[in-house]
Parts: sequence; C-alpha cells; structure tokens
Amino acid sequence: MDAFFEPDSVAIIGASHTPGKIGYEILKNFVKGGYEGKIYPVNPNTEPILGLKVYSSIDKISRDLDLAVIATPANTVPDILQTCVDKKVKAVIVVAGGFSETGEKGAKLESKLKDIIKGSKTRLIGPNCLGVYDPISKVDTLFNPRERMGRPTAGEIGFISQSGSVAVTILDRMAEEKMGISKFISYENATDIDETDSIEYLGKNERTKIIVLFLEGVKDGRKFIEVARRVSVKKPIVVLKGGKGEAGTRAVASHTGALAGSAKIYSGAFKQAGLVEANKWEDLFDFTKAFFQPLPKGRRVAIVTNGGGFGVLATDACEAVGLELPELPKNIKQKMEGIVPSHIIIGNPLDLTGDSTTEWYEAAMDECLKSNKFDGLLLITILSTPRLSEGVTDSIIKMKKYGKPIICCTIGGLFTINLVRILEAEGIPVYPTPERAAKAIATLVNYKELSK
Amino acid sequence: MDAFFEPDSVAIIGASHTPGKIGYEILKNFVKGGYEGKIYPVNPNTEPILGLKVYSSIDKISRDLDLAVIATPANTVPDILQTCVDKKVKAVIVVAGGFSETGEKGAKLESKLKDIIKGSKTRLIGPNCLGVYDPISKVDTLFNPRERMGRPTAGEIGFISQSGSVAVTILDRMAEEKMGISKFISYENATDIDETDSIEYLGKNERTKIIVLFLEGVKDGRKFIEVARRVSVKKPIVVLKGGKGEAGTRAVASHTGALAGSAKIYSGAFKQAGLVEANKWEDLFDFTKAFFQPLPKGRRVAIVTNGGGFGVLATDACEAVGLELPELPKNIKQKMEGIVPSHIIIGNPLDLTGDSTTEWYEAAMDECLKSNKFDGLLLITILSTPRLSEGVTDSIIKMKKYGKPIICCTIGGLFTINLVRILEAEGIPVYPTPERAAKAIATLVNYKELSK
Repeated sequence: MDAFFEPDSVAIIGASHTPGKIGYEILKNFVKGGYEGKIYPVNPNTEPILGLKVYSSIDKISRDLDLAVIATPANTVPDILQTCVDKKVKAVIVVAGGFSETGEKGAKLESKLKDIIKGSKTRLIGPNCLGVYDPISKVDTLFNPRERMGRPTAGEIGFISQSGSVAVTILDRMAEEKMGISKFISYENATDIDETDSIEYLGKNERTKIIVLFLEGVKDGRKFIEVARRVSVKKPIVVLKGGKGEAGTRAVASHTGALAGSAKIYSGAFKQAGLVEANKWEDLFDFTKAFFQPLPKGRRVAIVTNGGGFGVLATDACEAVGLELPELPKNIKQKMEGIVPSHIIIGNPLDLTGDSTTEWYEAAMDECLKSNKFDGLLLITILSTPRLSEGVTDSIIKMKKYGKPIICCTIGGLFTINLVRILEAEGIPVYPTPERAAKAIATLVNYKELSK
Repeated sequence: MDAFFEPDSVAIIGASHTPGKIGYEILKNFVKGGYEGKIYPVNPNTEPILGLKVYSSIDKISRDLDLAVIATPANTVPDILQTCVDKKVKAVIVVAGGFSETGEKGAKLESKLKDIIKGSKTRLIGPNCLGVYDPISKVDTLFNPRERMGRPTAGEIGFISQSGSVAVTILDRMAEEKMGISKFISYENATDIDETDSIEYLGKNERTKIIVLFLEGVKDGRKFIEVARRVSVKKPIVVLKGGKGEAGTRAVASHTGALAGSAKIYSGAFKQAGLVEANKWEDLFDFTKAFFQPLPKGRRVAIVTNGGGFGVLATDACEAVGLELPELPKNIKQKMEGIVPSHIIIGNPLDLTGDSTTEWYEAAMDECLKSNKFDGLLLITILSTPRLSEGVTDSIIKMKKYGKPIICCTIGGLFTINLVRILEAEGIPVYPTPERAAKAIATLVNYKELSK
C-alpha cells in the first residue's frame, strides 16, 4: 500500500482545464501542495494545465507509474483501469461514484473493476471515494480545495473513512484545532482495499499511534475482528459506525453499497476486537483528541473549576459515565485553606469561584495531580473572569509533568478561543462542555481497562 | 422588577479603584457600556473612579435610587442592605458569595438579608450572583469584562440562570453566534427573587419570545409549576437542571445552597409545566437556537445533503429521536432526475454528492419544502466541496418563504465558519453535527405536540 502514500510518480487521469472540476482540483493539490514526485496529467485535450505537459493517455507516459488517480465518470473507468493494469501501475484510486451504491447496473460495473485487477499487482482504492492524503509526502487526492478546507499537519492519527463528508469535516476541524495526522484513507465502496486492509497497514505504520475509523459496513467480519484485535492492543482504535436503524441501513446501501447490518452485532464485534466505539460524529472527534493524554491508572477524578454551575454539570456528567469523585484528602484541604479566602468551599468539585486567580488554580491543580488519591483532572476554566491572568494557560501546561490525564473544559467567544488554541497546541485537549469532557476521561479509563 | 432592568439611577456600592476587581469591572460596564441613567459609585475612599465622583456611603446621595449593586464582601452586606432599605432603594443586587452555599454560618447571614427586606418595598437578586443584563438599557452587572466576554445584542431570548458560569458561557456564545437576548437574570441563592418570579416577569415581557432557564433547585414546586405552565403555553421555556445524582446534589448544595432533589421528580414536574427539558449544556444552547424556526406541523422530515456519510448519520439520528423520513414523492423524483446526473441516487436522504452545485441544492430544497409530504428540512451542506458556490447561502435563506423549519448542519474550518455566520445572521440555525441537528428538529416537534 506504500505506493498510495509515497509514490515516486502519479498520473491524474481526467485532469481538467477548468478550476472547480474534480480533475482540476486534485491535480492542483499535487502541483501546489508540495508533492515532490513526477506528475502526469492525462486528458484527450493535451493543452497544458497549471504549466504541466498533458498526456492524451497513460500509454503515452514512458516511465513506470506508482499511482494513478482516475477522476473520470464511472462508465469510462473500466477501460482506463485496464490500461493501468496493463501498464503495471502499482496503485489506483477511482474517485467517481455511480457503482454498486446506485443499484444493480452500477454493481455490475463495479464487479468489472474487480475482475480487471484480479491476479494483477495493481491495488485499488474506491470507487466513489476521496482517496488518500499524506501530510509528509503531500500526496493529496481530496477534491475539496485547500482554500475551502484545511489539511492537518503531520502527526500521529491514522484516519480511515468510508465517507468523504465525514472525513472532510473531521480533517477540516483537525486542521483548525492543530491536530496532526499520519495518513488518511477514504475507501468507500471497498472494491479492493477495505477497512481491514487499512487497519492492518496503519497498524504497522510507525508514525501512526491512534487509528480513527468511520465505517458503514464490514465485508468480512471474522477477518476484521482478527486484524483489529491484533492492532488494538498496540494502538487505540476509535470507531464510529454509520447506518444503525432500518432507514440508516437503507441510506448506507445507497451511499457505499455496504451492508450495514445490526447495530448490536457491530457493537459486540467492536468490543470483541478491543475497539473504542463512538456513537456520533462528536464522540469520534472528542475521543480521538483525548488519546493524546497519558492513560489514567483508575477512574478517580478531581474537578477543579471557577464556575459552580459548570462544576455541578461536570459532577452530574462524571456520575453518569461511571467516574468516581473522591473527597478531597485532608492535606489538600488544609493546603488550599491557606491560599484561598474563607468563602471558597474546598471540596470535589473544588470551586475556586469567579474570584479565582491563576495562583489559586496553580495550587489546586498541583495538589490534586500530585495526590495519589486522583487518577486524572477534569479542569474547568471560565477564562473570561476578571482576575484570572492569561498566564493560566502556562500554569496548566506545566501540569503535564505529573503524567496524568488533564482534560480541560471551557467555551466562549474570541478571547476564550485564542487561549484554547494555546492549550491545544501544547497537547491539552479542551472540550466545550462538561459533559463532553467527562466522556473523554471515561473513554481513556475504559480503554485502559479494555486493553489490560 | 423593572427597577432592575430599566433604572433611572444606579449606585455601585464597593466600586473599586483597581481594574480587575469586581467593583471596578461592574462600574466600568455602566460607564463605558452606554447606560444613560445616573451612576453613583460608593466607596469610603472618595477619590474619583473613571472620572466619576465617589460617595462615601449611599446616605450621601441626595436623590432616590432605583438600583443598588452591592459588590462588597459577605459580612458587610447586611448593614449596607439595611441602608438601602432605609433609603427605599427599589432594587438591590448582592454579588458576593459566602452565604447559605458555605454552610450554617453563611445561612444565618443570608437569613439576615431576608429579614432586612421583609415588609419593605426593596426587592433583592442574589446573593452569590452575577445580577442582570439588559441590552437595551445597557444595565450590566456582569463582572466578566467586555474585552473577555461578549454581550449579546437585543433580541427575543429571555435568559434566567442560577449559575454564573453557565450564564457567561452561554451569553458569550450567543454574542459570538449573533443570537439576541431580551433580558438576563442570574439569581443564584434566590433569597428573594427566584426562578418563578423571573419566569413570571419574562412571561409578561413583550420583548421576550423564548425563555431559557438553568436551575439547580426550585424552592416552591407548586408555585413553579403553576406559573411555568401558564407562561409555557405562550412562550417556549427550555430548561436545564443541574444536580442530578448524589454527587451532583452535594455539589449544588455548596454552589447555591439549593436542594437539588430527585432528577426524576424534576423531569416529571417540567413535563407537567410544559417545559422543554435539556439534558446538558449543549442541548440548552441548541434547543434555544431552534426555536427561531417556524414550528413544524408534524414529524416528517426531508434530508438534503451533499455528503453521503453525513446523510447516513442524520438518518440514524432522526430515527433515534423519533422523526419520520418518508420516501420522496414521485413528482419530486421526476423533477430532480431532470436536473442532476444519473449517478445521483434520488431518495430521502437526497444525497446530491460532492459534485453538487448550488442549483441542484436550490431545486432539492425547493421541491422538498413546497411538498405537503414534509414538515421540515434537515439540510446538510459540506461547504468546502469544489462546485458549490458561496451563493448557496442566499439560496438557503430564500427558502424561509415556505414557513417550514430549516435546520442546517455543517462543520469545518474558517471558510465554513464564515458562511455559517451568514446563515445564522439570517435566522437559519446551523448545528455542527447531524445528531445535534436532528435533535433540534425533534425538539420543535415535541414542543408543538406538548403545547397543543
């Protein structure tokens, strides 16, 4: 599969002269995005595009090709794929929809693709997909233009998606929140390369520490469980399954042609394979963010807050997800009483109130994190309060030294957003609500227990 | 209660000379925020603050006072409150904490406040509260500085909160998302004015069309239900209750001194009173946003999308919250077949795919909204796709003419955020995930049925 991510040469078949067309945008990614291999646009109209020579067909390209991206309509794909196989192209991505997801006729067209690559050394991603993105090699077959959608920088998240829209929204938000990825694969109809191949590949990929998976259906359940179980003991795999009820199952069939199947069966299989299941878009994103924290030893959490109501909501949320909120030990109480005024109630949650200064926060975080009574910190910071200095972000970042998970919660306008950016750039995940923060900690705890 | 929101004169007792102190920040709001009444800072140190003459006590102010804000420590409050009562100040806000939420001693102090105002015409908000904000009169007793926290413009949401932190985060996000409010009250310990008084007041307030309520405990359940029921038939009331489990109940006691009580009993009471219950911070915000849409006649929803995976997740979510997704009627199918290419599968969800143009969207939205088979539209727009023009926002806004709810769903980076702002400014609510969008529609449907 390396040929998909680190090709020395790429042909864009169906490269277009018209900005906005998929075949133009994909070519532009390679030309303007920093890809350093050789690029061959292919189009019957051989006028140059973006300054590059255009070939009328891939036969006309004299060298061997690692990767071909086919960005032409579905009915033209089988013939083009055949020429790719004949030319021994190692990796082919088919972008067009119009295959098994459209019904019987499309399914026949798709089975032709399967027949064409059978026995060859050509591997296929798609059809009906976005293809791949690699932030280091700069291979980028996503047709959403970079002016409209951010690309994450290099990092440790391997992302596999059976949906382009779920993928682009997550990638766009990852870019916005400065989360880095190792490799991205969108495989949709899975004619050849599927979720299991992708997990296997990212499992072996050294840059990948966490795998994120959106899927609509698994073709070979036994193989999936076997591979996923093997990988998940080494790297957390977070999975969101689309297509749960009756209507959802029908929607899946007309999206990727997959068999969605029973949600219960899938949940059971995920558990068996050691996967962390997300139940909605938000969870998939939130859980992924959490995994950059150290894993907690247990489920005992301290809540430090400067908002009483947020503390109450966080308490409700921790209880709801099975986290424990032990009493503050006596020594911490005594220590804090020496620092904060008498109207501050020193408990868990430790509500420093809207009067809090950065110094109070620093003492509270320090005491809770160094105590062996707590396995992690749910830290609420209403950043707009008047006495809190902007340096509170430094104080929070310093707390990483304790090697315990710190899950932060805050939400607000621009002032808050700018401080949140600082925290996230330093690897402190910030969640907008107490409920989402509590769920993130619980996910770490559950994974820790799952992977014991 | 008008004296709290539209006072001709205000005294800030404990006005401070030091920026960052609560007594300084509150005074600054009045001085710099556009309040047009008379402002009297009160402090034993009578050096001017922000160019204003400072009075050593309120006795020294010769005129009658509508509002006094007491921003001094708890132990000084009873004496100051007594002078306010003696001076026949109509409305008093006590900001300081250190009362019943801290235990027995504090409760005694608080009962003194109750005794002092008993039989007088002075009404009291607080203690331990943020007080009030009115975007028209510019009365603003929130101590979070405006540079750090946005203030919503004038609008139709009346917001009542028993928590300052829940309040400031919601207000800050409302300001960011251009949602307008009528009046805001944070009442916390509810020594005098409580949730029921506030609901009654906003129920009669003409500018208020929707009431949003965060509460931790209700003091008089029977009165609450009776008033809320009367108001909720005229205006939707969205409520979030903090303090659900055991730990949450304890957290509430040390936050506002309220009795949280059983979550089940509260849910039952809310239902009886016709309130829309939110179960987390996100719901409170999301549901509020939805209520600016026309109420749907029923629960039949059309999903239009340019992302198949988002369509699948939206389908799952609609099923989960009890919305119906009828088949697309034949006439719409035929109409759409004449507009979109053959690889587009015309169903519900109607997945226009990443190829979609604004014209396809416009046709799809138009057909679904004018059909009597659908009561509302769940509209997913992945805005970063290459062929969608930025003018798609105009097309969406045009659809308001059908008088049916349009709930939009999209998420992304800066390009997307800027287009979302345009939609929201025109009253199209945008949710970041399919699950939240579906829940928003269901809320409208449920309220419609509840208020029948």
